[in-house]
Amino acid sequence: MKVIELRRTVTDSNDRDAEALRRELRSKGIFLINLMSAAGSGKTTLLSRTITDLTGKVDIGVMEADIASDVDAVRISGLGAQSIQMHTDGMCHVDAGMARAGIEAMEDLKADVVFLENVGNLICPAEFDTGAHRKVMILSVPEGDDKPLKYPLMFRESDALVITKTDALPYFDFDLDAAKRRALALNPDIRIFPVSAKTGEGMAEWEDWLLSELEAWKRDA
Amino acid sequence: MKVIELRRTVTDSNDRDAEALRRELRSKGIFLINLMSAAGSGKTTLLSRTITDLTGKVDIGVMEADIASDVDAVRISGLGAQSIQMHTDGMCHVDAGMARAGIEAMEDLKADVVFLENVGNLICPAEFDTGAHRKVMILSVPEGDDKPLKYPLMFRESDALVITKTDALPYFDFDLDAAKRRALALNPDIRIFPVSAKTGEGMAEWEDWLLSELEAWKRDA
Repeated sequence: MKVIELRRTVTDSNDRDAEALRRELRSKGIFLINLMSAAGSGKTTLLSRTITDLTGKVDIGVMEADIASDVDAVRISGLGAQSIQMHTDGMCHVDAGMARAGIEAMEDLKADVVFLENVGNLICPAEFDTGAHRKVMILSVPEGDDKPLKYPLMFRESDALVITKTDALPYFDFDLDAAKRRALALNPDIRIFPVSAKTGEGMAEWEDWLLSELEAWKRDA
Repeated sequence: MKVIELRRTVTDSNDRDAEALRRELRSKGIFLINLMSAAGSGKTTLLSRTITDLTGKVDIGVMEADIASDVDAVRISGLGAQSIQMHTDGMCHVDAGMARAGIEAMEDLKADVVFLENVGNLICPAEFDTGAHRKVMILSVPEGDDKPLKYPLMFRESDALVITKTDALPYFDFDLDAAKRRALALNPDIRIFPVSAKTGEGMAEWEDWLLSELEAWKRDA
């Protein structure tokens, strides 16, 4: 598995870098999605199922950002999707320079959609524009329905919220309506998709949204 | 609920500050524990049960560090334990200066043990000495048994690992032996306590360790 070691971008103009990367990716026809969540929320499992479900419809690439290890990238490449592992040198976020390094390191990239699986936490990733065209966040049922109260910025910044591990709802004290209400109070435009990547429940709605956003982005060109 | 707003410490000598705070707390007879974990791992639930179980044996105070909200501190104070909410101004960690501000803001503090519930993530909190006498981390079953591979520093730095939500083991693909083996490979001295704060399973072993560490610390004086 190819692993690239990232360093902090030596520039205070991350927003400008992000805007430039967004334009470059458009010219290459790559729709980049910044996928954010806490550690252990099921990002890689959601992506694995999404890649499998959408085989033949859309080519998906994945950039896995982590402090250490390459377990996620190995899982993804096992599905036949192009993937790369990025190490963030202890940093808890990915910025536009790092996202560009990841894209450039994926040789002969043939993907319509690339997911940037950001470092696992609900704090730092919300603060950096990575150059992505959409931001998606995950909240898993075991984390609790109070997370919008504790991490408001990420809920405000995201275009979609995927609530994962809904098959575990019977075993946890998680109020799905309260979670939705709290997310919508912070961000009335956020699209919410409760899913179980294990049973497949709700996956079609999430995948339909993804394809429709891709089509809308292509039309905007 | 009293809430204090924290700012980044204007010093590069956090280690020195932490050492000084550790000594001051000893002179006050306060055993400080830095409790770290991902968001949604059940820190507050573990503390709530621990406080209830140890009522009459030891007085516990809690400093809750979060980006926003005071939901955790309100939960803890509902148990009759002294608690304070700290807001970290967007930062994903607590340093020694912030820990001191929290201790000083707890007026008429009468506690043998104070838990600093650090900001919820497995990355930044591992990098800062808060002045605590012990470091305890939580890994919850739904997060997955691969977390030692992805966040090695926190496992290396911690004196104890509490594996929470073990009542959910039947519903998740979590290999308890693999998690223990991976943690011990990083840190052969780490003490591991699988617990369910819901059913009470394993709580006695965790609480016995806590009380024995407190006694050992007192004897070291």
